[in-house]
Amino acid sequence: MQKEREILALNAFDQSRASSMDTELGEAMQRRLRSFGKASVLFYQEPIRMERAEGVYMFDVEGRRYLDLYNNVPSVGHSHPRVVEAIRRQVGVLNTHTRYLNDVVDAYAERLLATFPPEIDHVVLTCTGSEANDLALRIAKVATGRAGFIVTETAYHGNTTAVTDVSPSSRPGQPLPPHVRVVPVPEMFRNPVGDPGKSFADSVAAAIDDLEQTGVGFAGLLVDTIFSSDGVYADPAGFLAPTVKLVHERQGLFIADEVQPGFGRTGAAMWGFARHGVVPDIVTMGKPMGNGFPMGGVAMRAPLLDRFAEEVKYFNTFGGNPVAAAAGLAVLDVIEEEGLMQNAREVGRHLLDGLRDIGNRHIEIGDVRGAGLFIGLELVRDRETKEPAPELASQLINRLRQRGILIGAAGPFGSTLKIRPPLCFGKDHADIFIAACDEELRAIPLA
Amino acid sequence: MQKEREILALNAFDQSRASSMDTELGEAMQRRLRSFGKASVLFYQEPIRMERAEGVYMFDVEGRRYLDLYNNVPSVGHSHPRVVEAIRRQVGVLNTHTRYLNDVVDAYAERLLATFPPEIDHVVLTCTGSEANDLALRIAKVATGRAGFIVTETAYHGNTTAVTDVSPSSRPGQPLPPHVRVVPVPEMFRNPVGDPGKSFADSVAAAIDDLEQTGVGFAGLLVDTIFSSDGVYADPAGFLAPTVKLVHERQGLFIADEVQPGFGRTGAAMWGFARHGVVPDIVTMGKPMGNGFPMGGVAMRAPLLDRFAEEVKYFNTFGGNPVAAAAGLAVLDVIEEEGLMQNAREVGRHLLDGLRDIGNRHIEIGDVRGAGLFIGLELVRDRETKEPAPELASQLINRLRQRGILIGAAGPFGSTLKIRPPLCFGKDHADIFIAACDEELRAIPLA
Repeated sequence: MQKEREILALNAFDQSRASSMDTELGEAMQRRLRSFGKASVLFYQEPIRMERAEGVYMFDVEGRRYLDLYNNVPSVGHSHPRVVEAIRRQVGVLNTHTRYLNDVVDAYAERLLATFPPEIDHVVLTCTGSEANDLALRIAKVATGRAGFIVTETAYHGNTTAVTDVSPSSRPGQPLPPHVRVVPVPEMFRNPVGDPGKSFADSVAAAIDDLEQTGVGFAGLLVDTIFSSDGVYADPAGFLAPTVKLVHERQGLFIADEVQPGFGRTGAAMWGFARHGVVPDIVTMGKPMGNGFPMGGVAMRAPLLDRFAEEVKYFNTFGGNPVAAAAGLAVLDVIEEEGLMQNAREVGRHLLDGLRDIGNRHIEIGDVRGAGLFIGLELVRDRETKEPAPELASQLINRLRQRGILIGAAGPFGSTLKIRPPLCFGKDHADIFIAACDEELRAIPLA
Repeated sequence: MQKEREILALNAFDQSRASSMDTELGEAMQRRLRSFGKASVLFYQEPIRMERAEGVYMFDVEGRRYLDLYNNVPSVGHSHPRVVEAIRRQVGVLNTHTRYLNDVVDAYAERLLATFPPEIDHVVLTCTGSEANDLALRIAKVATGRAGFIVTETAYHGNTTAVTDVSPSSRPGQPLPPHVRVVPVPEMFRNPVGDPGKSFADSVAAAIDDLEQTGVGFAGLLVDTIFSSDGVYADPAGFLAPTVKLVHERQGLFIADEVQPGFGRTGAAMWGFARHGVVPDIVTMGKPMGNGFPMGGVAMRAPLLDRFAEEVKYFNTFGGNPVAAAAGLAVLDVIEEEGLMQNAREVGRHLLDGLRDIGNRHIEIGDVRGAGLFIGLELVRDRETKEPAPELASQLINRLRQRGILIGAAGPFGSTLKIRPPLCFGKDHADIFIAACDEELRAIPLA
């Protein structure tokens, strides 16, 4: 964990340098620090003054263009005209809460719920994925009457107090809260196991036992269905199935955090859980839902919401406002009409193959894995020992930034490139990235 | 508390009636319930299918116009052209997170911080007031190393797990969490005290003692500076001062929740705390900040944020996005250029006087109080006993809705009309409301 922090610091701008930079960029950074202080984190050793963005490209104040492989929020493409138009239209008409009836809101809820298995038939709209996960935990606690949650070792589920409790990656060096247990992801790279489905289920079973024995009780298992912050683990599809079966046998709820894999990104289905052939009890959504318009949601089996509503009067002022609903409807339209799920599948395959291909020439590439347009590229110091190479990841990220390509890192060591471009990313864009990685890895002197 | 619940239910639509309504409205309600289930709460015995809104007016699908005295989110007026234009412009240009530099975001942070006393010089931007209060609690815990918070008896501060813990109005009938203490608002209507400043400070002192004696320790006092959900208590201005002094003497933080009174609504100042002549350690903001665009924020003294940032890497994906910043800038521009604070003061005075005037003719009006365009009108069964009249409040609210006026209720008994129209509300609008209250109160048969 501490390691990860240091690595993130490597990728990010060192605040102490701002005052010594006698340039427009230095002034812009000092300005940022004056208002936002030490909490401000800027990407890259040389931060970017971003001005506009369109499709898969972002542009800085000097008009320089960047190919975006980092941003999963503008999922159907930056400034997508259809989404922009939907927001522009609705914001001039009505922007209010859900205590009045409004057709746009109800149409959105129906369209969204239609993307789920029929068991998942109720929704609460929130403003962020963090609010969605916070609410999901509450719903699970009320439904089960128990408080214990199981998450993965390097999970990130959001930023509220309660959600930070179940986000080990946000609490480096801190002991786990008494109601939380962590389990390792069945990661087949460093710790190949014979049957990852069984391995994961065994870990979860032990954690349930522990929650029960300590008297906390088991409320639910919460996982990002592509395990993004753990380092992107998608395969083998189906490995979650034995665990979900177990969770239900043990009277707990399975909460699928679809904030990152959701809305078609994996290319296989609208939702990451579908790749695993499971049906969650609760699904949480966020980031790509409004292509940047702040919105999130919790979809679930009706009895869970009914039970919760009996006990708690939850209300979210901005949640489900008609402008968010209009944005959300446009996002669903674009995913469907532009065939973005199929594009994620095809371009994702192309990208995966291309990166694996250059992996044959670069021993620093230890692994390339993922699903659709969510790919993790693992950098190692040594292919045999698989020792992580976070410094190399940081160098590569900053070199790619200098040549106009945006990318970030994830995983417990910060050694995994997290590749998740807007879903309109094409094979030509993939080729640019593959060639750039190839060249930069050749140019970086081996440690 | 249970009482309040019943009353809220009186104001709201009874879900069980939806299926029996063979009308377009009935169909719309059934549609709402199908997706949102029992968690859905609709205003009024006859809910409204809202379609558009402009200034102080909202319009339903049949084109019927409603004068809005309820909605404090579209604070500078529904669909304000300046805010709408700012959102329309920015949403087509760039909508991303704060890990790139962007002038719009930095300009907004500076403009916002300039509205505070100089001690409050750092800000974190969030998406909602709930997220803001959740973060404020975390910052106070890190800064003090203690966990105990004091809030008012019927406080509402938001909807996350941690914020619900400090929102007694959201937890009717449930015991307080061990780290929370409640104090009564110095309400001068039912429990007049000689010196409300001293009375409030004494209550807080006792709560601090208790937190310390039980080993929890005192982290901070969190109050809505106009005590909205407690029933709207603004006067006498300055009554918070002795308490804030005490809080600091006892090494705690004073957190001002400005989600409701902030952005000029009290007419006296940009922030509710300023009426009391105090400087908070932390200020939280939400609802009116983006006139409906989801945004919130936490402003604070720099050392608090620096200390927090050393321990916690907080990041909010949508928080501080350039579209929110553009909306926020437009809101600040409009408040200033249209003189909305002065308008709130003048029209608020006019409204207060007019309602007190009809109070002379209606013994059911027990009290009219507030500041600027945040007014509470207390309905009683009996002026002597001051017994609350929530059923009368409900009748009046539903009758006003039928004649095209939107209003809601608050307070521990649901007997306080909560009057908080958009800040562009005029004296002519006030007169319409005063006359309507007068007529309806005359028409409602005395119980």
